[in-house]
Amino acid sequence: MKEKILSLIEQGKYLEARNEICSLNVVDAANLFEEIDQKHILLVFRILPKDFSSEIFSHMSFDLQKHVIDSMTDEEAINIFDDLFLDDAVDLLEEMPANVVKRILKNTDEDMRVLINQFLNYPADSAGSLMTIEYVDLKKEMTVKQALQYIKEIGIDKRTINTCYVMDNSRILEGVISLRKLILSDESVIVKDIMETDVMSINTHDDQEDVAALFRKYNYYVMPVVDKEYRLVGIITVDDVLDVIDQEATEDLQKMAATMPSETEYLKTSNWRLALNRIPWLLILMISATFTGGIILRYESALQSVIILAAFIPMLMDTGGNAGSQSSTLIIRGLALGEIKTSDTLRVMGKEFCVSSIAGIVLALVNFLRIYFIENAGLLIAITVSVTLYITVVVAKIVGGTLPIAAKKLKLDPAIMAGPLITTIVDTVALIIYFNLATWLLGIRS
Amino acid sequence: MKEKILSLIEQGKYLEARNEICSLNVVDAANLFEEIDQKHILLVFRILPKDFSSEIFSHMSFDLQKHVIDSMTDEEAINIFDDLFLDDAVDLLEEMPANVVKRILKNTDEDMRVLINQFLNYPADSAGSLMTIEYVDLKKEMTVKQALQYIKEIGIDKRTINTCYVMDNSRILEGVISLRKLILSDESVIVKDIMETDVMSINTHDDQEDVAALFRKYNYYVMPVVDKEYRLVGIITVDDVLDVIDQEATEDLQKMAATMPSETEYLKTSNWRLALNRIPWLLILMISATFTGGIILRYESALQSVIILAAFIPMLMDTGGNAGSQSSTLIIRGLALGEIKTSDTLRVMGKEFCVSSIAGIVLALVNFLRIYFIENAGLLIAITVSVTLYITVVVAKIVGGTLPIAAKKLKLDPAIMAGPLITTIVDTVALIIYFNLATWLLGIRS
Repeated sequence: MKEKILSLIEQGKYLEARNEICSLNVVDAANLFEEIDQKHILLVFRILPKDFSSEIFSHMSFDLQKHVIDSMTDEEAINIFDDLFLDDAVDLLEEMPANVVKRILKNTDEDMRVLINQFLNYPADSAGSLMTIEYVDLKKEMTVKQALQYIKEIGIDKRTINTCYVMDNSRILEGVISLRKLILSDESVIVKDIMETDVMSINTHDDQEDVAALFRKYNYYVMPVVDKEYRLVGIITVDDVLDVIDQEATEDLQKMAATMPSETEYLKTSNWRLALNRIPWLLILMISATFTGGIILRYESALQSVIILAAFIPMLMDTGGNAGSQSSTLIIRGLALGEIKTSDTLRVMGKEFCVSSIAGIVLALVNFLRIYFIENAGLLIAITVSVTLYITVVVAKIVGGTLPIAAKKLKLDPAIMAGPLITTIVDTVALIIYFNLATWLLGIRS
Repeated sequence: MKEKILSLIEQGKYLEARNEICSLNVVDAANLFEEIDQKHILLVFRILPKDFSSEIFSHMSFDLQKHVIDSMTDEEAINIFDDLFLDDAVDLLEEMPANVVKRILKNTDEDMRVLINQFLNYPADSAGSLMTIEYVDLKKEMTVKQALQYIKEIGIDKRTINTCYVMDNSRILEGVISLRKLILSDESVIVKDIMETDVMSINTHDDQEDVAALFRKYNYYVMPVVDKEYRLVGIITVDDVLDVIDQEATEDLQKMAATMPSETEYLKTSNWRLALNRIPWLLILMISATFTGGIILRYESALQSVIILAAFIPMLMDTGGNAGSQSSTLIIRGLALGEIKTSDTLRVMGKEFCVSSIAGIVLALVNFLRIYFIENAGLLIAITVSVTLYITVVVAKIVGGTLPIAAKKLKLDPAIMAGPLITTIVDTVALIIYFNLATWLLGIRS
C-alpha cells in the first residue's frame, strides 16, 4: 500500500495518490508523508481535502512540519495553524525557528497571541504544558436537552465532548458531567442536579509525573486543569498521559544507566549530544572507582604474597554490583509507581536483609564448592572468598534497597542514586572486607 | 478525612461513616476499605448504597475482595459478582481459591459460565485477557435518532458508550461510530452513511505489548477485539492499556537488572519468591565472571612483577560496564518503543562508534593526566591504562549497542541481553587488552 502510493507520486499521478491517501488512517498518512520525496510533499499536501490535511499535519514530525510551513505561503501556513488544537500549536511553535514563529504570530489575532504566550510560559514538564483549552463548558441551569443542543452546536471544534465542565461566571469550576450521563438522563433534568460537584482537578503547575499518577489511580480519560483561584483553564486527555508515562519510564531508565535524560529519540540525537549526555557520569564514576584502586594498593603486599587473591576481585565486584542493582531497580520502580513509600524504609531493609541472606548463602555455597573442589585453591582461600561474597551480597542489597528511598526523602531523584553509584560503594566495602579477611585468615603480614 | 472515617467506624458510628464514605471518589473509598479493621469491613460494606458498594468492590485488592466474598452469604456474593464488568469478574476468579470459584460459578447462569470459561482460556498477556464484552452494538440501518434512543436504553450497563460498533448478523465487525459523531449529526441520517468502515482492530491472541503499541500510535481511547473470523468479541479501553504500559516497562527494567520479571508489587512479594527471582541470574553471572578471574591468573607473573597494574582493574571494569549499559539501555528502550528497528543495526553501530570515540578520548585523557601527574605512576603505566580505557569504552558501547538488536533479530528478548551479560563480555575483552598492552609496553616476560 505504502509503496504503491509512493510510486504513484513518483510517477506524478497525484490525483490517484490523493484518493489512496484519503483511505488511510490519519496517523499512517502522516507517517507516509515522512517518506515522500521533498520535492513532491507540498504538491501532494495541497490537493488533500483541507480537514484531512490539517489533521495529517498535526501528526507529522516537527522536522516535516517545519519543511511544510517553510514552503507554504503565509496564508496557507496560518490556515493550517488555526486548525490545530492549542496544545499542538504551542508544541509546534516551541520547535520552530524564530523566523517561522514570527511569521505565524504576526498573522494570528491578539487574543490568540496572548493565549499562546501564556502557554509558552508554563514550565516544560508541568500540567499547563500538557493541557489544551478546547473543552465543552456548560451552565448549571441548562436542562439536559439544552446542554445536548449546545454540545451539538459547538462540539465540532472541541478536543473531546465526552466530558463537559460547568463553571460559574468567574470561570470557577463547579462541576463535571459526562456526555454519557447526559444521554442517559431525562431531557428535562437540570444539569446542576446530575453533575458531579466533587471534582478531582489538576493545577497548572503540577508536575506531569503527578498528573500521570492521578490518571493511573483513578482511570480517568480526561481531567480538568485549574489555576490557583480554581478557575478552569484547560483539560488534559489520556492520550497525552500515555506519552508522559513512556517518557518518565525512559527518563528513569536513562538515569539508572548513568546517562543524562533526553527526550529526543536515539536515532534523531546527534553524536555530540549523545556523547555529552554520557560523559559527565562516566567521568564521575571513573574517578570514584579509583578509590577501589586505592584500596587494592593499600593491600599491595598481601596481594603480592598471595597473587591468586587478585583473580577473585572481578567476580566479587560484579556479583556485588548485580546484587545491588537488582534491589535498587525494584525499589526505584516501586517508588515511581507509588507502590513503595518513604515510610516503608524499615520494611524494605528487613525484606532485603532476608532476601540477601538467602541469595548470599546459595551463592557463597556454590562459590565455595567451585573454588575448593574444582579450582583446588585451598580451604582458607575458598572460605575467604565465600564469606566475602556473602557479606558483599547482603551489603549490596541493603544499600541498593535503602539508598533510593533515602534519596527520595532528601527530595533527590531516586533514579540518580541507582546502579553505578551503589556499585562504587559496594565495591569499596567488598574489597575492604576481602583483604581484611584474607590477611587475618591467611596470616599475611600487611 | 480518612482518619475521621476510620475513627467513626471504630466508635461504631456506622451511619455517619457511611455518609462520609459516599462523598468519596470510588477509588479512594476502596483504598479506605484496605485500612478498615477486618471485623468492621462487612458491616460497613453492607450499609453502603448497592451501586456504590459494587463499584468499590471492583477497585479493591484481590486479598480484600477474597475476604469480603468469604464472609458473605452466597446470595450477596453472586449479586456483587453479577454487577462486575466481565473482565473484572474474570480477573477476580483467576485470583480466588478453588472453593470460592466453585461457589460463585455454581450460582451463575449457563451462558455466563460459558463466557467466563472462554475468557479464562485466553493466554495471560493476550488481548483476550484485557478485553471486556460490555460494548454498544448498533445496526447499520438505524437512523441517528434510533441509535441514540437505543444507547439510552442499554447504555447504563456498558463500559463505554463513547464508541459504538456496527456488526452484521453473523457478528462480523462492519464499522465504528463515535457518540460524538452521532450527537453532531442530523437525527435522520442513517448510521451506515456516517460510520467509519476502515476499522483498526485487535485480534484476541495479539500480545498486550502490541496492543499498547497501537494505542500509543493512534491515540485511541477504545479499540475493538475480533476473533479469527473477524467477529467482534470485545473491546479494550485505554485505562487497561495504561496498566500494560507500566507493566511492560517494569518487566524490561527487571530483566535489565538481571531479575526474573514478576507482576506482583515488591512489598506484596514473599522473601522466598524475591530470592528465587534473583538467584538464577546472579549465579549465571557469578560463574561467567570467573572467566575474568581466569584471565588475571594467566597473567599472574606480569601482575606480580608490576603489582600496581591490579589497582586499575576495578576502574577499567566499572567504566567498561557503565559505558556498555548506557548504550544498551538506550537501545533496548528504543526497540521497546519502536523507535529503533532491527534494520538500523549499521546506523546504531556507526553512531556508537562515533559517540564512544568521543567519550573514550575524553575519559582516557583525564585518566592519563591523573595517573601521570597526580599518582606519579610512570609514563608507560599511564599510557597502558589510558589506551586500554579508550578501547574498552569503544568495545563496550558497540557491544552494548548491537547485542540487544541481535537478540531481537534472533527473536530473543533484548532486555535479557542487557547490562550484566554485556559487562562480562566487556570485562574479558578489557583485561586481555590490558595485560597484553602491559606486557608489551612494560617489557614484562609472561
